[in-house]
Amino acid sequence: MKRDGEVSRVTIDRLSLYFRELRELYREGFDVISSDSLGRRAGFLPGQIRKDLAKFGEFGKKGLGYNIADLIRNISIILGLHQRINVAIIGVGNLGRALAGNSKLICINFNLVAIFDNDQEKVGKSLNGIRISGVDCLEALIKERNIQIAVITSPATLAQSVANRAIAAGIRGIWNFAPVAIKVPDNIALVSEDLSSGLASLYYYLSKTEIGPTRINGLPRAK
Amino acid sequence: MKRDGEVSRVTIDRLSLYFRELRELYREGFDVISSDSLGRRAGFLPGQIRKDLAKFGEFGKKGLGYNIADLIRNISIILGLHQRINVAIIGVGNLGRALAGNSKLICINFNLVAIFDNDQEKVGKSLNGIRISGVDCLEALIKERNIQIAVITSPATLAQSVANRAIAAGIRGIWNFAPVAIKVPDNIALVSEDLSSGLASLYYYLSKTEIGPTRINGLPRAK
Repeated sequence: MKRDGEVSRVTIDRLSLYFRELRELYREGFDVISSDSLGRRAGFLPGQIRKDLAKFGEFGKKGLGYNIADLIRNISIILGLHQRINVAIIGVGNLGRALAGNSKLICINFNLVAIFDNDQEKVGKSLNGIRISGVDCLEALIKERNIQIAVITSPATLAQSVANRAIAAGIRGIWNFAPVAIKVPDNIALVSEDLSSGLASLYYYLSKTEIGPTRINGLPRAK
Repeated sequence: MKRDGEVSRVTIDRLSLYFRELRELYREGFDVISSDSLGRRAGFLPGQIRKDLAKFGEFGKKGLGYNIADLIRNISIILGLHQRINVAIIGVGNLGRALAGNSKLICINFNLVAIFDNDQEKVGKSLNGIRISGVDCLEALIKERNIQIAVITSPATLAQSVANRAIAAGIRGIWNFAPVAIKVPDNIALVSEDLSSGLASLYYYLSKTEIGPTRINGLPRAK
């Protein structure tokens, strides 16, 4: 996470998980839920849920639980998910395709309006109903379609340069999936996903129960 | 994150980012780095790096910085990345393909030894040099190839059942990418990735600078 806000990234992550479960519950026809039941569904302790929500106001009634529709609306406002933000994906590899087709993203106002790639084989083809544009059109389409978030799924070598171009063209946030650190000005929101960190967490937890032989991979060196 | 350890998931995430930068530095031929320079590369404050590392021991020398090879070895041991753990991917969609081909994962001992799908069109084909097996072979191959981590990239509807089968067959950890909460016994490590939470963080940070019209998507309901 790039920027320190008043609320930590992990709290925001948890809120978005509560949000997901609450929407499921709402669809299933429920009106009210206790923090105990929500905790069981979302995989958190009820106390954690109460503490997280208490940071933003008083949402539940003691002994009565939470009104689900109200809580969805409130979390949505806290997270800013009520905003309709136009998004572009830059880079049509497997990850770009997975994100373009991700139904969970679409249900939280992920309003995908452009997809870019510099492979002429891909340009002009359609992905989830959206035409793939050449990266040469990046600036023009960001302005024309009022795109505010760029999702970078390009190779690492191109990530910084497409980020720079997207920022210069007016985007306000970058969601970076390229396996490289991107630098952005202070007024640009940046969330970087590092898939290997999830795996590292898993290795960490497994290593608590069993330690294998201590060994470090041989690494080629420049000198 | 499923389980509370002595160290938080966010610390582990940061360690894995330091680890990535240190390996790059080592490859580029550097021997020593200050927390200031490492901070600039990895996108963190030097104080954050010093504080995180201090939780695990004394690694740097004041005024001299960190020995890069030593720090790689130490972080590797802290994270348990020195373990060689056999991994299977269950579900060959775009995300499964992206993970199978992710070079950053491979460099942290992600030892992919099996890939499963229940689509007979895919079974028998090869993905990054590994033959795709039918899900009917799940138990047999988990045992035969000593697979300890199952990466679940199946549709949400199948995730819990393949997780149950993988656990019954002997795996110790699950890395879940399916957009659904999975339940596992206490002795199984679980890391769940929710792609929408990264986007929610980004929306949250954007909403701090500009608030759009308050609105919640219409949701169909069961009753």
